[in-house]
Amino acid sequence: MRTQVVIIGGGPSGLLLSQLLHRAGIDTVVLERRARSYVLSRIRAGVLEWGSVEMLRKAGVGKRMDAEGYVHSGTYLATQNRGFRIDFDALIGKRVMVYGQTQVTHDLYDARDRMDGIVIEEALSVTPQDLDTDKPYVTYEKDGTEQRIDCDFVVGCDGFHGVSRTCIPKNVLREYERVYPFGWLGILSETPPVSDELIYANHERGFALCSMRNSKLSRYYIQAPVDDPLDAWSDNAFWDELKRRIPEEAADKITTGPSIEKSIAPLRSYVAEPMRWGRLFLVGDAAHIVPPTGAKGLNLAISDVHYLSTGLQTYYTHKDQSGIDAYSANALARVWKSVRFSWWMTTKLHRFPDQSAFDQRIQEAELDHIETSVAAQTELAENYVGLPY
Amino acid sequence: MRTQVVIIGGGPSGLLLSQLLHRAGIDTVVLERRARSYVLSRIRAGVLEWGSVEMLRKAGVGKRMDAEGYVHSGTYLATQNRGFRIDFDALIGKRVMVYGQTQVTHDLYDARDRMDGIVIEEALSVTPQDLDTDKPYVTYEKDGTEQRIDCDFVVGCDGFHGVSRTCIPKNVLREYERVYPFGWLGILSETPPVSDELIYANHERGFALCSMRNSKLSRYYIQAPVDDPLDAWSDNAFWDELKRRIPEEAADKITTGPSIEKSIAPLRSYVAEPMRWGRLFLVGDAAHIVPPTGAKGLNLAISDVHYLSTGLQTYYTHKDQSGIDAYSANALARVWKSVRFSWWMTTKLHRFPDQSAFDQRIQEAELDHIETSVAAQTELAENYVGLPY
Repeated sequence: MRTQVVIIGGGPSGLLLSQLLHRAGIDTVVLERRARSYVLSRIRAGVLEWGSVEMLRKAGVGKRMDAEGYVHSGTYLATQNRGFRIDFDALIGKRVMVYGQTQVTHDLYDARDRMDGIVIEEALSVTPQDLDTDKPYVTYEKDGTEQRIDCDFVVGCDGFHGVSRTCIPKNVLREYERVYPFGWLGILSETPPVSDELIYANHERGFALCSMRNSKLSRYYIQAPVDDPLDAWSDNAFWDELKRRIPEEAADKITTGPSIEKSIAPLRSYVAEPMRWGRLFLVGDAAHIVPPTGAKGLNLAISDVHYLSTGLQTYYTHKDQSGIDAYSANALARVWKSVRFSWWMTTKLHRFPDQSAFDQRIQEAELDHIETSVAAQTELAENYVGLPY
Repeated sequence: MRTQVVIIGGGPSGLLLSQLLHRAGIDTVVLERRARSYVLSRIRAGVLEWGSVEMLRKAGVGKRMDAEGYVHSGTYLATQNRGFRIDFDALIGKRVMVYGQTQVTHDLYDARDRMDGIVIEEALSVTPQDLDTDKPYVTYEKDGTEQRIDCDFVVGCDGFHGVSRTCIPKNVLREYERVYPFGWLGILSETPPVSDELIYANHERGFALCSMRNSKLSRYYIQAPVDDPLDAWSDNAFWDELKRRIPEEAADKITTGPSIEKSIAPLRSYVAEPMRWGRLFLVGDAAHIVPPTGAKGLNLAISDVHYLSTGLQTYYTHKDQSGIDAYSANALARVWKSVRFSWWMTTKLHRFPDQSAFDQRIQEAELDHIETSVAAQTELAENYVGLPY
């Protein structure tokens, strides 16, 4: 088989890239290791920057999002049980959209199906080859048979543990990492959200976040040791601890109920450079990981897709390499800004094991400062709703 | 002897408080452990917030400052040998004044002399007594004889190592501290400053600062191990290291020359709470220390003097205690904001011993962010020129 661009990974970034390239007349094949049903069962972040919203609309997958998503024009920050609001709309005239990554992925699969896009599920042992030549190809195993696809380019949308990044020689790849000494214990609960906007809470017992999927489905998180056994956290223990960490006004009116999902996730910042090597491009988690604070993961993958899809269109339309040659530098410039912001929100809001009384007061002073400075709120809003591409 | 307010410490904050109270008809006695000549030989910071400038004018000591000080409407930040300017004037319509603390102290002594203010030099073994009664007094030794001053209030302007803070019982005093793992090696040099505004430089070899006293007197600093022996730093070694850390454009045009002063200072953040106990008030370094990054030390002492002098005037004029009762809370609210800003500038600009490649890139990303965000520059400018009282 031959195609123009092989995309490794059938998550939202791979599908979105495939969709945008297809609409621009560029052939792609998406290879996904798992079954579609598995991909669609993964629960991930749910806050879209406005640039992401516009990218999804541009890809023709905005209809259900616009009908069912929740536009948020602000968010709450809290410290020591006292909260205040950051009004994105008033500060910078922009907003975000709450719409789950699972739904985005679902919409993208539907769109790919409508266009007869090729997404090969359960493609095993995917191996990019000859990436440093102008005739790269990808081999994989499907139903016990080895397959080969020749192509012009390979794009790694296969996440942190995918094969793509490992194809870049060790002497070329530079890696930057910070592992945070805590995790997020999260639950999904079929209860009405306590707030119609998110509440990010700094507390001396640890961070807490009140989020939502829709008017009947809440998503709550509390900072917890990443190695805590899940069965140490009964639903009641979770709700009790959450209530301690959020402003009393919110704690008093929260509706509790059984969790329908519960898990602990580690927090990490990671960046690999460069994001291009020969005929290989890295997109999203394959090249960078951010902690969930500020919900930048999916949004950053979408901005990578923006730079790469426009670069590939310029290449195929005008035989002009400038866009793909600039991809790594352009994508990384924005990546580092989002990595910085996620790191900043994480370090401002969480309790660290070695945190001194001084550090705790500095955190409170930072939040007081944000509460009283329009400039600080504007800076936060600019980053939260998403920097321009 | 009897007076209304005994002020312990004849540095700039004690003298300014004495001057303002005297002008409001309130009697003070200032007790200083050292000789005036010693106090005037101390070399300290030289950047005044605009609120400090206005306080000095209000105290009637602004004449020489306005004639000889340098108004700066911006400052430079640099990272990896590339610099950009923060334009205070354009961003928020405010400026700072470069005028040395030594000169401020000189002007204050002159003003105190003109008004026949009582400043007792070489007062030894100063001991505040009965601070938790309404009849406090202070004893001290002068020329071998014990003296006593009865008063209404005692104000500790006697710095971090002074006696005043130690009078607050241990079970009342809360202390917050961060010691930074490096110092500032500074020189004074009778050379024209390399820049007519300050240059704050982040570099992987460590922080550097190009500052000035006047058009013929430069002040330069480089981050260095706090226990480095001074004789390990010849003038040539200092200039060479400074040039490596600042943008090439500045390094190329710097005028070097012999140092007329050279020292290494530690960097520390420290806050003591409360700033009032009974009839005792703490002002400036007696209650809080900031690292020199951002030049907040003297400015913070002056804002303390603002809150305390207005509180005492309200008390003596209207027998209204509200101002002095609110002193600790009001002063501390602003103290923590400046402590936060100094900590922020210090952590953004210095190289830490345990700094990872990730941390280094985050520092660079923060400075890139400031360079490209008007909101981030506005926030920095607001803090640098000084938050409102």
